[in-house]
Order: sequence, then structure tokens, then C-alpha cells
Amino acid sequence: MNGFTPSLEALIDKLASLPSIGRKTAQRLAFHLMSLSDSETDDFINAILNARKKVKRCSVCCNFSDDDVCQICSSKERDKSVICVVESPRDVQAFERTNEYSGTYHVLHGAISPMNDVSPEDICIKELIARLSDPEIKEVIMATNPTVEGEATAMYISKLIKPLGVKVSRLAYGIPVGADLEYADEYTLVRAIEGRKTL
Amino acid sequence: MNGFTPSLEALIDKLASLPSIGRKTAQRLAFHLMSLSDSETDDFINAILNARKKVKRCSVCCNFSDDDVCQICSSKERDKSVICVVESPRDVQAFERTNEYSGTYHVLHGAISPMNDVSPEDICIKELIARLSDPEIKEVIMATNPTVEGEATAMYISKLIKPLGVKVSRLAYGIPVGADLEYADEYTLVRAIEGRKTL
Repeated sequence: MNGFTPSLEALIDKLASLPSIGRKTAQRLAFHLMSLSDSETDDFINAILNARKKVKRCSVCCNFSDDDVCQICSSKERDKSVICVVESPRDVQAFERTNEYSGTYHVLHGAISPMNDVSPEDICIKELIARLSDPEIKEVIMATNPTVEGEATAMYISKLIKPLGVKVSRLAYGIPVGADLEYADEYTLVRAIEGRKTL
Repeated sequence: MNGFTPSLEALIDKLASLPSIGRKTAQRLAFHLMSLSDSETDDFINAILNARKKVKRCSVCCNFSDDDVCQICSSKERDKSVICVVESPRDVQAFERTNEYSGTYHVLHGAISPMNDVSPEDICIKELIARLSDPEIKEVIMATNPTVEGEATAMYISKLIKPLGVKVSRLAYGIPVGADLEYADEYTLVRAIEGRKTL
């Protein structure tokens, strides 16, 4: 006999189709789900359905939000003149953890990637452009990932924004703090030399 | 702002409570679940509910089964005189992949572990003892894991079985095929010497 029972195999297949879940982990998860009580299962399923029902995109910055406008966009303590443009809500969390950035964000939900069939219309670029009609906004910081897609997205958006008279900047490239120069890749080193600062 | 929206955080917490899922993976999974269509979400939830509803334990060997008696126990081609006792349905799959073992199995669903509050009554030992009243059964192979718990479980069960006049054996310990002796641990090497065979 190969494999488990059909319905268990179906569940394992479903779990294995999730991102970063391999077949072994899917098996372990399936066995765990089989061992839960009915009320624990209900809790689990309700967490999924509840998040799907409640979580929408902030009407300003497109970040995930339970309300129409997210906590950051509705906060009076944030500097509304700067928008940090990121690919994913996870990137917002990364900046928030620094406790240094006090501006607002704009979440694109992806990056332009012809290889993966993601065109500019598929990510939240038009929502960003719409925000720029507000004269309060002085600067847009492109904080997309330092990848081919992130770079292309940053270039594409900056070309759209520049004619509007808003300053566009890009995160600095260089060696990460605490890293070992010996293991830095050549592209990063070249960018670090190009971006060197006078002491 | 720390963290995502409350309902998204609740979902991430639930996912992170699953075995072998860390917080980063839970975030990725949650984002994936948010991006599914409604019908894909239904498929996912139905796979869980369907498996929980359909999958029961085989009334003979306690392995997972969609039917009252599993495919292996109901097969006429399996040797019913030998029972291989394992801790988990995954172990059954491991033996089945060898394509060499043609006997039946018994799944304990765990191992005796006082540390984790698992007593002999919590695993399927009584179901195994009940099977041994069948005079057809000649041998029980203890194939629990080579861990403290697996070892203790094997010893406990063999003491119960021996008075019944059924042969009890244990999987051989030794160096794994294809392994490098240099990296074998001392316990395995001692067992390999003890179990040496004349050429």
C-alpha cells in the first residue's frame, strides 16, 4: 500500500501546496489536525475565516487593516509628508521595529515582474499616485526589495512620480551593520564604495 | 504600531501554534490564506473537515483508515502471522516503501513517556494484546523508535506478550547503510559490534 487513506492524502496535498510547507511538514500538520478536538478545529477554521472576513486593505496606504483606514494612516503622530513605499505588509513591520521612522507607508502588495506575469496594474501603484495629489506630501522613499523586481518597480514608480514635483529617494545600498566584509558579495561591495561618505 | 491587525495576528498565532511552524512561516501562511479566493478557501477548509470526518482508526491495527478495516488488514496478500508494531502511521509508510515487508502492522499512536504524561493506557496497547488471541499470529516485531521512549515501550509490550507464547523480536541496531563510520555515534557503534554477524 502506498500513501495514507484518500481523504488524509487529500489533506496532505492541500497542506503541501502552501508556501514553504514541504511534504514531510504537511504530513506532520495533517496528523496534528487529525488529533485536535472538534472545538480546537473550529477555533482554527474560524481564525482563518475571521481574518479573511475582517481584514481589508487600508483605503489610504493599502496595508492590511481591520478598519477602513489603518492605525498608522489615522494616527495624528505620524509625519504625513513622507511615504515609504514597500512591497509587503511584512516590510512595514520591519520598519516599525526600528522605532525610528515616523512617516507613513504605502504597500504595493508585490513588485513588477514580467517573468511572473505581474504588471504595474496588478500592484497598488495607482493608489499611490492618487495619494500624491495631496500637497502635504513632500517625499516618497522607495523601499522595495534590493532584487531585480524590486529595483525595476522602484525605477518605474520614480519615473511616474518625478513629473509631479515630489522628491523620490531610494534606500541606501551598502554593507549590512555587523556583517563580515569577507563574506559580502561583490555587488554589495561595489554599491558600498559608490555610496561612501566623507568622515 | 507593532504587529498586524488583531484578526490577522490571531490567525498568525493559531498557525504558529502548529507543529514545526515558526512565526515567520506562520506569517507567510497567513498572507497566503488571505490571498486565496473564497472557493480556494472553502476547498482548504473542506479538506480539513473531510479528513477529520472520514478518517478513523482501523478496527484491527489502529492505523488511519477511511474504512472500518484498513487496506493492509483486509488484503489477502499480506502475511497475517506477523505484526510489526510501530509508533505512528508514518512508520507504516516507511516500511511499505521498502516493498519487502509483507506482514501486517499495529500502530500504537505514540510511545510510553512518563515525562510527557503518556502512560500505557494512552496508546493502543490493549488493541494489540486483543489481536494476539488469534492463534494464527506467530511473531510480533517491535519497531518502535530507537529512543528512550520507544525502547521503554518495546520492553513494556514484550513483557506483556511473552507469557502469551508469541515470539517477540526487535529491529536490529547497527550502522545505517551508506553511512560514514567516522560520524557514527558511540552508542550505535557499540550496538553494531554487539550485533555483529559471522561472514
